[in-house]
Amino acid sequence: MSYQPRSRELSWAKPLSVDLLLKVLNVTFLHPFVAWMVPLCMRAQAMRWSHTAMEIAIGYASLITALYFVEVLNKQIAFSKPRKVDLSDEVIVVTGGASGLGLLIAEVYGMRGATVAVLDVKDLESGEARGVSVYKCDVGDKDQVAKVAIEIERDLGTPTILINNAAIVNGKPLLDLSLDEIDRNFRVNLLSHFYTTKTFLPGMLRAGQGTIVTISSVIGQIGAAQLTDYAAAKAGITALHKSLAAELKSTPEIKTVLVSPGQLSTPLFNGVQTPNSFFAPVLEPVDVAKEVIAAIDSGSSAVLAMPLYARWIDWMNVFPVGVQAILRRICGVDSGMKTFEGRSALGEKESLI
Amino acid sequence: MSYQPRSRELSWAKPLSVDLLLKVLNVTFLHPFVAWMVPLCMRAQAMRWSHTAMEIAIGYASLITALYFVEVLNKQIAFSKPRKVDLSDEVIVVTGGASGLGLLIAEVYGMRGATVAVLDVKDLESGEARGVSVYKCDVGDKDQVAKVAIEIERDLGTPTILINNAAIVNGKPLLDLSLDEIDRNFRVNLLSHFYTTKTFLPGMLRAGQGTIVTISSVIGQIGAAQLTDYAAAKAGITALHKSLAAELKSTPEIKTVLVSPGQLSTPLFNGVQTPNSFFAPVLEPVDVAKEVIAAIDSGSSAVLAMPLYARWIDWMNVFPVGVQAILRRICGVDSGMKTFEGRSALGEKESLI
Repeated sequence: MSYQPRSRELSWAKPLSVDLLLKVLNVTFLHPFVAWMVPLCMRAQAMRWSHTAMEIAIGYASLITALYFVEVLNKQIAFSKPRKVDLSDEVIVVTGGASGLGLLIAEVYGMRGATVAVLDVKDLESGEARGVSVYKCDVGDKDQVAKVAIEIERDLGTPTILINNAAIVNGKPLLDLSLDEIDRNFRVNLLSHFYTTKTFLPGMLRAGQGTIVTISSVIGQIGAAQLTDYAAAKAGITALHKSLAAELKSTPEIKTVLVSPGQLSTPLFNGVQTPNSFFAPVLEPVDVAKEVIAAIDSGSSAVLAMPLYARWIDWMNVFPVGVQAILRRICGVDSGMKTFEGRSALGEKESLI
Repeated sequence: MSYQPRSRELSWAKPLSVDLLLKVLNVTFLHPFVAWMVPLCMRAQAMRWSHTAMEIAIGYASLITALYFVEVLNKQIAFSKPRKVDLSDEVIVVTGGASGLGLLIAEVYGMRGATVAVLDVKDLESGEARGVSVYKCDVGDKDQVAKVAIEIERDLGTPTILINNAAIVNGKPLLDLSLDEIDRNFRVNLLSHFYTTKTFLPGMLRAGQGTIVTISSVIGQIGAAQLTDYAAAKAGITALHKSLAAELKSTPEIKTVLVSPGQLSTPLFNGVQTPNSFFAPVLEPVDVAKEVIAAIDSGSSAVLAMPLYARWIDWMNVFPVGVQAILRRICGVDSGMKTFEGRSALGEKESLI
């Protein structure tokens, strides 16, 4: 993990972002416990209940508390009861787990005592990792997936957690893409999800427990110049997640987690420009890994998006087309890839993350 | 076109829908011309300008007029200046044009004197059609597309309008789909768009005019049980449209049209249940064909969705997950396919529309 993205060295203000502010607010002013402290302190100073300041403080605390419970209710309606996740009992498959985000998740689970199988065309970037077995496999090739599945079943047992993370980026305008590059993009970024899910889901159903994680991208929802193939594949797996979650409503022991991150500072996106590091900070893989691991550990289904703007990206599609066009221009959606260099500029062969 | 969907014979109220109401309103109460008639009539009866009824009537007419111009401005910001479409000068390629919506569009353009090439694995359902040449081609096979493109160029000239309409539906839960069915779904419903666009776009750029139409589906935006593969492919082509439209910003002579219809009464969706024929009427192919043809003829880029609910479907994705779950249940998104029969129940071999 020796790769250092250039953009990180630009300014001392770089780490300051709307996400950091919100993170601080969430454990301070926006937390019900903290909010109730204020009227309690006021009362301790013998302020009258009918005092305006007291009324405002109680009103604010009540609102924050109500919102907290609405959020709990929201998740209870959307998702079934969490399943128990005992890591000593789980076998985890991570596609594209030899580097980047996938490797990070695999390493954490390996260190925590879970059995982890990494499916990748490369060797582990870190040489080796505790509890992590690497299976050489192009997940875009259904025969290789079938073959490796038998080996994993024999070596490690029945996989119960599947993390579909493998992805490649061509990063060229449609007319510059070769048909082979397009086919390969869809095999790795889209079809692999169908191959692995169809391969491992039956075992999860037999085991009576399972979690399927889909690592998608905000680009699927809005598209972008020079990413026709990548955006189409990511949109496809987001739709797959939605459809699969609907099909699995009747088997609540299988959980589905959708992750739609913004731009990550991994070699995969080397050279991509982001317009504003305050509103659209570049994500570190560890930020995403933490949330994915928390969601899997909770044993609940989840829909995750980070940083903050990614949670609001679907609003882009409900605005009138003229407003969408203006927003795309302001946000630099279609100019970000102009400086794209990718893994090849780092002397790496383009390969699965 | 002898196929008659069962659902149409159920009730005399069937043709009554929110879309029909809106269609009537759009040429009456919601039309600026009609809205200004009211204050003019009042004035003709010598009503005072300051009368409350007069003020309300003028206010309403002003609002309707303002909205009309906002809509014009919205399109001007989003899309470049329309190109001139002279049908005698255009060569139109329709994929999957041997039956259903594709055939209808091909027939209309053929009758209007355009040169039309239909790409399909079947013969024309109507036997033959004026001005329409059929090229036997599986659009999911890149070699066949390349071969047929050379034939079309030789026989008819350089295609300037590409209507990507071919689609198949497997309509099975993910675990019942074979890997071959999944591959075929993506070849026909998704990859074909890349193959045909890459094949015909360079010719359009040379000709200095072109229109690329993408027939997608609302299902791509929300997913649905038993449609994992179909939803993923449709989401993919919607993202392709968005990305391609962004790449073509610098070549305003090429127009892009996205069409996201709801359920059509074609053999492709035989047996599918819709929960409410007032709010979610089943579309006739002719309703969609009319709007597609109008958009192409206008020479402008466009984003179309019909019936009315399809224009609001993106709102589904911005609601909290709990609300989404409730809406999916009320709308029957995930139960509609339970009674799916498809073309095979009609004694047809499953094939491209």
